[in-house]
Amino acid sequence: MTEVFAGVDLGGTNIKAGLVTDSGEVLEHHQMQTLARRGPEAVAARICQVVRECMEKAGVEPSHVRGVGIGSPGTIDLENGVVLFSPNLPGWRGIPLRRMVEQGLRMPCLLDNDANVAALAEQWVGAGQGASSLVLFTLGTGIGGGIILDGRIWHGANGVAGEVGHMSINPDGPRCNCGNYGCFEVYASATGMVKRMRESIIKGAATSLAARPEEFTAEDIHKAALAGDQPARENIEQTGRYLGLGASNIMHVVNPQVVAFSGGVTAAGDMLMTPLLDEVQKRTLEASRMNVKVCFAALPNDAGIIGAARCFMLQ
Amino acid sequence: MTEVFAGVDLGGTNIKAGLVTDSGEVLEHHQMQTLARRGPEAVAARICQVVRECMEKAGVEPSHVRGVGIGSPGTIDLENGVVLFSPNLPGWRGIPLRRMVEQGLRMPCLLDNDANVAALAEQWVGAGQGASSLVLFTLGTGIGGGIILDGRIWHGANGVAGEVGHMSINPDGPRCNCGNYGCFEVYASATGMVKRMRESIIKGAATSLAARPEEFTAEDIHKAALAGDQPARENIEQTGRYLGLGASNIMHVVNPQVVAFSGGVTAAGDMLMTPLLDEVQKRTLEASRMNVKVCFAALPNDAGIIGAARCFMLQ
Repeated sequence: MTEVFAGVDLGGTNIKAGLVTDSGEVLEHHQMQTLARRGPEAVAARICQVVRECMEKAGVEPSHVRGVGIGSPGTIDLENGVVLFSPNLPGWRGIPLRRMVEQGLRMPCLLDNDANVAALAEQWVGAGQGASSLVLFTLGTGIGGGIILDGRIWHGANGVAGEVGHMSINPDGPRCNCGNYGCFEVYASATGMVKRMRESIIKGAATSLAARPEEFTAEDIHKAALAGDQPARENIEQTGRYLGLGASNIMHVVNPQVVAFSGGVTAAGDMLMTPLLDEVQKRTLEASRMNVKVCFAALPNDAGIIGAARCFMLQ
Repeated sequence: MTEVFAGVDLGGTNIKAGLVTDSGEVLEHHQMQTLARRGPEAVAARICQVVRECMEKAGVEPSHVRGVGIGSPGTIDLENGVVLFSPNLPGWRGIPLRRMVEQGLRMPCLLDNDANVAALAEQWVGAGQGASSLVLFTLGTGIGGGIILDGRIWHGANGVAGEVGHMSINPDGPRCNCGNYGCFEVYASATGMVKRMRESIIKGAATSLAARPEEFTAEDIHKAALAGDQPARENIEQTGRYLGLGASNIMHVVNPQVVAFSGGVTAAGDMLMTPLLDEVQKRTLEASRMNVKVCFAALPNDAGIIGAARCFMLQ
């Protein structure tokens, strides 16, 4: 029988889990709300419950599941399987999640960062299939990332490599939540898009979004652009150019085979990707971009599950 | 007997070579002018001559030298041992230097980029001794770099990883020689220092360098600062802050155990390092900088020789 692994994608809102084969196929998946406010013990119990439901739905005995990989938001103590801190899991500090799930499921378990495991999934069976190195930018409220080198997550000295959102791209730029100035995510995240759109409105831009300047989201900017709103379209194109700058920096430093972008804003498609690729062309030399694929992620829904399972496989 | 390897540091001005033991000790070294204008065949012959003189001076028979590592400026085809292009070796395009030296010395040979091999030397027996990951910034006319992960050079997809000088740190900054805008090296290289000093002079800065605005070098800025010239001192401190920004970007993305800086400008010592470390403190989170050493390189003269030999050892 094919080897089966469980992958868990722990988010601030939902817990998703699935059974994954050693070729990257998802046999069965299931999800429930995280309800993080009920505390770590309750969340660990729900993680175990979601994994059990996957096994039941797939008709797989627990003895046939080799182990469980978990991707968690935040900073992880990899060696000890502890969530040190996570903005998306309020109040979590030093939570030994690996041990808690191991005890609940009586299975070996591995814990890593969610962006890292998503990058691993993309390299394995997604946008980077066939490549051994990939950098993933995860676009959302902030910008995270994961770095895969030689088919494995590069964690760095303190397990925090891939914090691409906090590269300074302007020495005197606006202050970021992290305390640094001019961080890439201040410009190119969904939050940054909304902030720049508000600034355009203050400067008098003729946009439908001006009617509700305190309410709209990055998704609303995309909808407005699709409806022909020119300032909204320019906002998305500018976001693409910033993302192209970020990609170029990574191509100069890491020179991976693949640079991929995931997150809601990628729904903007070519409106985002065309200026992004133009910017990469402008900011890199042939030697850095030759044969390098710059693209959207290919596993928008399952990257967390597949990558967490893959992480366990590779340990 | 200890194993011995030859290391060659090919520069635009000088060829330096040495015999290196498997513990990183340099037994003997020797150098001569490159005379690059005489062409690749002549340079390859001079490389062989320098290595032979090292063997003679050390009394080591050629049969006791395991092989030769060469660090060359420019873009290298690693697999084939070819210098594809190098601004410091005018006219060199597609030069099969590895084969030329192998034929001349009748020894196995390996070719890599000079900044890469210097980084490897620093990780092995220099600033990064005891660490497995290190990023080196080589400061000069431009800014190059080398990335060592798990004790080995990270080359990237096209062999050009570590081009840290071409990270954009200002989307709309001045154009760089590479065609990109706002590159890190435009601000923080020796060339950038001189350019910023000239701009200060145009703005009326009270500096001794104003008497010869077209002539001074980064070294002159340092000398003026030591003599109490305040604008010159501010220039060096600002350079330190830019270098700290560059270090922070690398700490966020790669999170190496050591970030080291080499090159003539490091002679400025604390005047450069104090603002550099302040900036790192300001721009990174505890998680990225904890236990990470940010420092000057420890092998100012021999890094090229030792790293080239180490490169051969590791192949």
